[in-house]
Amino acid sequence: HDSKLPNITWSIFSQMSALAEQYQAINLSQGFPNYPASDRLVALVEKYLRGGYNQYAPMAGVVALREVLAAKVQALYQLNVDPLDEVTITAGGTQALFTAIASIIQPGDEVILFEPAYDSYSPSVEVFGGKVVPIRLRGPAFKIDWDQVREAISTRTKLIIINNPNNPSAMIFSRADLLELERLLAGTAIFLLSDEVYEHLVFDGERHHSVLEFSHLRERSFVVASFGKLLHTTGWKLGYVIAPPRLSQEFRKVHQFNVFSVNTPMQHAIAEFLTDTDTYRSLPAFFQQKRDYLASGLAMSRFRVLPSAGTYFLLIDYSGVSALSELEFAKKLTIEHGVATIPVSSFYSIPLEQRLLRLCFAKSEDTLQQAISALANV
Amino acid sequence: HDSKLPNITWSIFSQMSALAEQYQAINLSQGFPNYPASDRLVALVEKYLRGGYNQYAPMAGVVALREVLAAKVQALYQLNVDPLDEVTITAGGTQALFTAIASIIQPGDEVILFEPAYDSYSPSVEVFGGKVVPIRLRGPAFKIDWDQVREAISTRTKLIIINNPNNPSAMIFSRADLLELERLLAGTAIFLLSDEVYEHLVFDGERHHSVLEFSHLRERSFVVASFGKLLHTTGWKLGYVIAPPRLSQEFRKVHQFNVFSVNTPMQHAIAEFLTDTDTYRSLPAFFQQKRDYLASGLAMSRFRVLPSAGTYFLLIDYSGVSALSELEFAKKLTIEHGVATIPVSSFYSIPLEQRLLRLCFAKSEDTLQQAISALANV
Ligand SMILES: CSCCC(=O)C(=O)O
Ligand SMILES: CSCCC(=O)C(=O)O
Repeated sequence: HDSKLPNITWSIFSQMSALAEQYQAINLSQGFPNYPASDRLVALVEKYLRGGYNQYAPMAGVVALREVLAAKVQALYQLNVDPLDEVTITAGGTQALFTAIASIIQPGDEVILFEPAYDSYSPSVEVFGGKVVPIRLRGPAFKIDWDQVREAISTRTKLIIINNPNNPSAMIFSRADLLELERLLAGTAIFLLSDEVYEHLVFDGERHHSVLEFSHLRERSFVVASFGKLLHTTGWKLGYVIAPPRLSQEFRKVHQFNVFSVNTPMQHAIAEFLTDTDTYRSLPAFFQQKRDYLASGLAMSRFRVLPSAGTYFLLIDYSGVSALSELEFAKKLTIEHGVATIPVSSFYSIPLEQRLLRLCFAKSEDTLQQAISALANV
Repeated sequence: HDSKLPNITWSIFSQMSALAEQYQAINLSQGFPNYPASDRLVALVEKYLRGGYNQYAPMAGVVALREVLAAKVQALYQLNVDPLDEVTITAGGTQALFTAIASIIQPGDEVILFEPAYDSYSPSVEVFGGKVVPIRLRGPAFKIDWDQVREAISTRTKLIIINNPNNPSAMIFSRADLLELERLLAGTAIFLLSDEVYEHLVFDGERHHSVLEFSHLRERSFVVASFGKLLHTTGWKLGYVIAPPRLSQEFRKVHQFNVFSVNTPMQHAIAEFLTDTDTYRSLPAFFQQKRDYLASGLAMSRFRVLPSAGTYFLLIDYSGVSALSELEFAKKLTIEHGVATIPVSSFYSIPLEQRLLRLCFAKSEDTLQQAISALANV
């Protein structure tokens, strides 16, 4: 047999993390924190492990956790979410994305997404025989041209995928953007998959606008979020999806046969931990401080730092430094200068003439300082 | 939009566990242990949680864990498995099954499976547009008629799914069965998905025959196993797949965009725990004792106990007790007699005239005794 998936290649994140390890480089490539998780959270996991919470959780998730998430949405947006019918706990944000796509995409369906795009969207659509219709974010500010979206919509468009805050461009959607999208989708049967895993990482006093706030978006949306980004525990692989009952039902049809249920003791621990709302309220300031530390540290280098409005990433432009392609230059930086980054071209279906690298600043100040020093010498 | 998956319904395991909880019944329905996991194992999870192993694991799994699994295959079957190219850690056995199917099944492909069949196989095939061709296991011993399999194979057959030991029938495949299958598949391009999650739960001095032992099966097989069944921790949701490099590669193409990677601290803990080979060597005697306790306890009841050669399930025939359908009788037993079980008809695409229920004996002796007393009064 030939491969069912001849076009799928290996994730750039695995590649660059492996290269970082091989050359003992400072790893600002794959997005994960390098400082410890909260002691109180770890102690809570231990409590539930010891307490005998080690068998199957309910298929849609531990109810206490779904309730605490509904309470979070209430506190942040003054919106009611039904924990039983609208919240499903997943084995990470990626599984939520894949399962949402699985639950609606059939061969021939078109899916509109915006590039640069997180690397799992396109292959996930391909696994189900869907066709990706990519639209490029425009200019240095990575803006969406909504007229272009209007033109891209066809009778076969089944789904639009957005990622807000956007990885890797670090842009956030404005209220005007989401109103525009709402207008565009009014009267259509197009679904929306809104990847909001960086929802709490929004800086400079701006606030995150969830599609949940826009009733005509919410009614057609799967909203995906991640505990890894919220709790600095990307390796626990827990996330969730919020969707209206009709869509949650379709999601769970696949979820129950994809993973059935997810880690029980950790779900209980997170439920108890998140009753403290400071957990998410403190994140913007925590990460903004790191962003500013890295950005100001790089101000004296030959790299140009692009603005980061959200996520734990920022982009640097190296066109003043080298004419190498992004992948070549990223490898060179790792091997010769000891700093691993991600080439932004990996987030495009068609490579383009840019000289951008993505840096993750979810790192200890010590690590960021080492990266700054190494990059200053380039 | 209409549902993409109109035929998919809710898993019988969620339904019966919910009913058991509602009526405070003894839950012998969904398969999970009700006694604690090993203290040493829990302490190891704590060690890695505290030790800062809380970020993304490698996509294919923690290398130490894959090595310990390769060592297990070597110890049990004197076979070499390459931990790097042939072992992939998953978020439970179910995710391994779903991902294997995702990596090869395309619309129109036919998949042969044997009924009674675990309830995730058929819907998983359907999600990818495949067509299930069910074959019934024969007679009271649930034997495979290999001539019938030969006749069911067509030019569109892409995959055969077997489950050995078999849930729910509790039968195991003989060496002769697997040799027959090997002969049947020789010279075809048909893949094999071998669900061996109960590999260590084989009784009466018999031994489990893995498809890994049959070189012409192994070269075309995804072999799925589960840590939940091995460590009495079904709620941790960890499993793995062993497949030749070419198939592992196809598997990982989907795996990396389905879940990317799985729980890091638990992978490390299990790797260290499994260096003690007693972990799996002691399982047959441990579960056989429970099987015998339940079976002999029921000998005096009006139910007829069928033989259980493997898994942690046994079947009872209630045709001497009631003429109700299996689902009706299972509900009645739960509500009126306080014992939840699984109707075996849930494992068939077409319900049949049998009066069988499945009981899980992975329970403390105390729980089993309570169930025996309750069933004695029926
Ligand atoms: C799942 S590995 C990639 C982590 C991540 O979100 C990123 O680096 O963009
Ligand atoms: C994933 S819930 C079902 C557990 C199980 O394997 C069974 O009860 O058959």
